[in-house]
Amino acid sequence: MIYLDNAATTFPKPEAVYEKMDEVNRKYAVNAGRGSYKLAQEASSLISETKSLIRKHMHLDIDASVVFSPSITIALNQIINGLSYREGANIYISPYEHNAVARTLHGIEQRCKVNIRLLPTDPDSYEIDIEKTRYEFVKNKPDYIILNHVSNVTGYILPIRDIFKEGKKYGSINVLDSAQSFGLIDVNPVMDEVDIVAFAGHKCLYGPFGIGGFVCVNSIGLSSFIMGGTGSDSLNLDMPSDSVTKFEPASPNIVAIAGLNAALKVLDIEGNRVHEKELSDYLVNRLSNNKKVKMYLPGNPDNHIGIVSLIVEGYDSNDVGTILDEDFEICVRTGYHCAPYIHAILKDEKHKGTVRIGLSRFNTKEDVDKLVDALIEL
Amino acid sequence: MIYLDNAATTFPKPEAVYEKMDEVNRKYAVNAGRGSYKLAQEASSLISETKSLIRKHMHLDIDASVVFSPSITIALNQIINGLSYREGANIYISPYEHNAVARTLHGIEQRCKVNIRLLPTDPDSYEIDIEKTRYEFVKNKPDYIILNHVSNVTGYILPIRDIFKEGKKYGSINVLDSAQSFGLIDVNPVMDEVDIVAFAGHKCLYGPFGIGGFVCVNSIGLSSFIMGGTGSDSLNLDMPSDSVTKFEPASPNIVAIAGLNAALKVLDIEGNRVHEKELSDYLVNRLSNNKKVKMYLPGNPDNHIGIVSLIVEGYDSNDVGTILDEDFEICVRTGYHCAPYIHAILKDEKHKGTVRIGLSRFNTKEDVDKLVDALIEL
Repeated sequence: MIYLDNAATTFPKPEAVYEKMDEVNRKYAVNAGRGSYKLAQEASSLISETKSLIRKHMHLDIDASVVFSPSITIALNQIINGLSYREGANIYISPYEHNAVARTLHGIEQRCKVNIRLLPTDPDSYEIDIEKTRYEFVKNKPDYIILNHVSNVTGYILPIRDIFKEGKKYGSINVLDSAQSFGLIDVNPVMDEVDIVAFAGHKCLYGPFGIGGFVCVNSIGLSSFIMGGTGSDSLNLDMPSDSVTKFEPASPNIVAIAGLNAALKVLDIEGNRVHEKELSDYLVNRLSNNKKVKMYLPGNPDNHIGIVSLIVEGYDSNDVGTILDEDFEICVRTGYHCAPYIHAILKDEKHKGTVRIGLSRFNTKEDVDKLVDALIEL
Repeated sequence: MIYLDNAATTFPKPEAVYEKMDEVNRKYAVNAGRGSYKLAQEASSLISETKSLIRKHMHLDIDASVVFSPSITIALNQIINGLSYREGANIYISPYEHNAVARTLHGIEQRCKVNIRLLPTDPDSYEIDIEKTRYEFVKNKPDYIILNHVSNVTGYILPIRDIFKEGKKYGSINVLDSAQSFGLIDVNPVMDEVDIVAFAGHKCLYGPFGIGGFVCVNSIGLSSFIMGGTGSDSLNLDMPSDSVTKFEPASPNIVAIAGLNAALKVLDIEGNRVHEKELSDYLVNRLSNNKKVKMYLPGNPDNHIGIVSLIVEGYDSNDVGTILDEDFEICVRTGYHCAPYIHAILKDEKHKGTVRIGLSRFNTKEDVDKLVDALIEL
């Protein structure tokens, strides 16, 4: 079996992740941060250490507050619903946003009078048009910019630094969705002028399900969205004011955090980047002469990594997925990949979305060869 | 080490839980319900089977829709924020509610004009006064009743059937928080006239962190609270209308679900009930003549199980916890236990809350003896 759905979740994980999860499950899966006994304190230390590792891999110092959430989806809900919007606020997003952002913002749009604006995107290169973006910002000053770092549909690396820097000229609050980038390419919120970064544990970081979160690089007034027990200040009907605790109700998932801890300790971002870039270039190269296959690649190959979306002439994408699974034991994802806007630009609706190949550090050229051979045989 | 903080999270779990989690982690921790490949389908089957087991243990048929959430806290946020409240609606809760309910409702109170009403409670027996409750309902018709089944502070089993049945005379929507009951005593939403039951995986069910949820027994109009990708209907900016999918954005935590699955397969509710009742009666009995110790027990011993809260004269509760940990290697929880209202009735504030002993199926009379000996030695 060849697993190429790594953009959904990386699989497998490093052995250390499995071992650490099992160990913590058996030895100290207790309620961290709430009990004062030693076992609970050990669990708390593991959480602190894991947050330090997140900071380290993002080049951040102790001032950046790391919040753990059960998933990046929940983290993005906490961020987007936690911000307060003035009437008429302009919220810019790219057409590459995932439904964790798009649907959540759509919910905001229904309650508040805000303008959701899509960044101008070139229909041929599928890349954000920076010049037009500048012009848009002049016309409609950006209050918030929320951007996907790497597209989960096409592997396009968005020019976040250019866009966020431009936005900051107008005082925008910048939010980065690093679901498909953190662990794969350098994420540097300070250099990129990001205020809040949301991250996923189970994707490019090779951690487990059940843990994600966000990092507040700069102090942005964010309200609590999810309420509950915090093991502190219990008689207060409001969430505590502490900038982390107010976002972390409920028992922390110490087993998932332990898995993430192990993953972060063996994480080699530069190694992952080099390997996946090589592998995706190899895949693109091998398919580039195939007339039946159309790939959706950013105009500039430097802006591409890890994910290839394609269609096969004469086939619905779902059918390609089924054939790859049943006849070749190759797992890919097909359809719209929870990204509602981009398909109008890719124009892939005739094929009911794309066939998406998501690579990981554990994939090999042999995996890619088998996939390409299968696609040729179709 | 003797672990007596089982009301926070049960520890340890059955061996089968650890084994199943490790197995699924290694073999098919992929994105269930989104990929069409066989591996993803196996993950989906595991989810369906686990939901069937939840239904079975609640005596429900297939019509009851089971929603998985990352925790019961998030489930309660989804329920409480998903309901729509008319102006002036009366929401009854008991003073035993946890902050997952109390703080979330406080958030509602700040946005909507609703009345949060505490059920009348006898200051001597610490029990809900049913007669006074009936009278309250006559005066202020209940629109919603949200009740803790078993108090996480005192182990009091609330008379939910009486209260919910009385509420139904006025057409109330009844929500049960079964965090401390499901798995320990019989939870029968149909008999108890419950519309929605929230449940926790990692407490009395002996499942892992990272999985909880709610069951809609009757069809109550509930809106989505958390938005995100659902692997379906991706081009729609609204959450899908399906009564389960609309509440389950993001990748399901298949590893936690696998652990819950294993836990539910070995779950023996009646066995747990008998064991914990015997053990808590034994603890109460052994401490009842100790003049330094005051226990907060419901007036009727039949309404008590699994948890004992106490204070020790001359000590802050936190200090008792520290001494038990350091000198006797006994883990208990101290403080207010994320329950904001009940302490005004227990009048334990002088001691900064209670020392809480939370029992589990894995505790023994020897554990209780060692705790009691330690308390006597204080």
